[in-house]
Amino acid sequence: MSGPIDFYFDFISPYGYLASTQIEKIAAKHGREVAWHPFLLGVTVMNVMGLKPIMETPLKSDYAVIDRPRMAKLFGVPLVIPDLAGVNSLAASRAFYWIKASDPALATEFAKRIFHRLWVDGEDITDAEAVVAEATVLGIDGDALRDGLQDRWTKDLLRDAVDRTIARKVFGAPFFIVDDEPIWGIDRLWMLEHWLAHGN
Amino acid sequence: MSGPIDFYFDFISPYGYLASTQIEKIAAKHGREVAWHPFLLGVTVMNVMGLKPIMETPLKSDYAVIDRPRMAKLFGVPLVIPDLAGVNSLAASRAFYWIKASDPALATEFAKRIFHRLWVDGEDITDAEAVVAEATVLGIDGDALRDGLQDRWTKDLLRDAVDRTIARKVFGAPFFIVDDEPIWGIDRLWMLEHWLAHGN
Repeated sequence: MSGPIDFYFDFISPYGYLASTQIEKIAAKHGREVAWHPFLLGVTVMNVMGLKPIMETPLKSDYAVIDRPRMAKLFGVPLVIPDLAGVNSLAASRAFYWIKASDPALATEFAKRIFHRLWVDGEDITDAEAVVAEATVLGIDGDALRDGLQDRWTKDLLRDAVDRTIARKVFGAPFFIVDDEPIWGIDRLWMLEHWLAHGN
Repeated sequence: MSGPIDFYFDFISPYGYLASTQIEKIAAKHGREVAWHPFLLGVTVMNVMGLKPIMETPLKSDYAVIDRPRMAKLFGVPLVIPDLAGVNSLAASRAFYWIKASDPALATEFAKRIFHRLWVDGEDITDAEAVVAEATVLGIDGDALRDGLQDRWTKDLLRDAVDRTIARKVFGAPFFIVDDEPIWGIDRLWMLEHWLAHGN
């Protein structure tokens, strides 16, 4: 029972970002690794579940406006809510899996940069050039990544990853699976810690 | 800053039931009272928010099947999941507000009995006679309640209560409001306790 914590998120989820600031600490405390898995909430929430995005859902959207900065304050981490209508994580997620294919640890560092760019700096991550800019800071070859983002192979990597999240019944962000136990939500880090400490 | 904890729930929500087993203890620890407010999730979730019930939502319904007994076990309380297609809380909720109009503390005791009937005994609460049976155990006049459930006045009590939940942007169960701070979900009792202890 010492497998990794599978950490599922979408870069466009502020709760995914908030979880990303906590999960490595929690895992280290319990002697676990973290496997990072970006997926596409739009596919899962809209296509598979038939729901609307939170910010288009009455009442829940009002709550999110109050809750996001409150959660960031409780965790003691920065959070800006950028006004980026139409922001999407397709290029960033493809880049993640393209990097991961050769260097999983580097892909995790890249994921942290993407989260930081969007939720701390408040800058868009939608364009391929934004994604390439974050990658090159990490020493990744920008031209190779730029080409890679166009490859059918890279697109299939992300599609397969999204299919696997659905097969594992992952439906929100953040979502954790540890020892086959599914735990959903930024509000359940206590449950994740309880599982890691007690195995129930 | 010593007002009550407003506790919103629907009798048909197992998470509402689970919260009902914890909320009085939490409030007492922090010197607060609890104001119990049943409402109708169907009106809020389907009519106002345009969503589906959890158990009709792919992926989330699978998670709920795993999560409900897990939560009950963590709290150390009994929970059965009755197979009651079409169970609804209209009569029980009307009865609650009819009782509350003359005796709020008695209404709370009644609410606990309704929760127990459905989620511990696994018996239906839909029929008026089931509701009357639970009330009479508490010394309430069954004939008066039976008549009261038919009154326009009683129906308006519930309708007004549901309207007030929507006006306060309550959208799930359990939902807590304390010192105007909205806190949603059985997974956020830690946040409620944090607010009660620290005021943030």
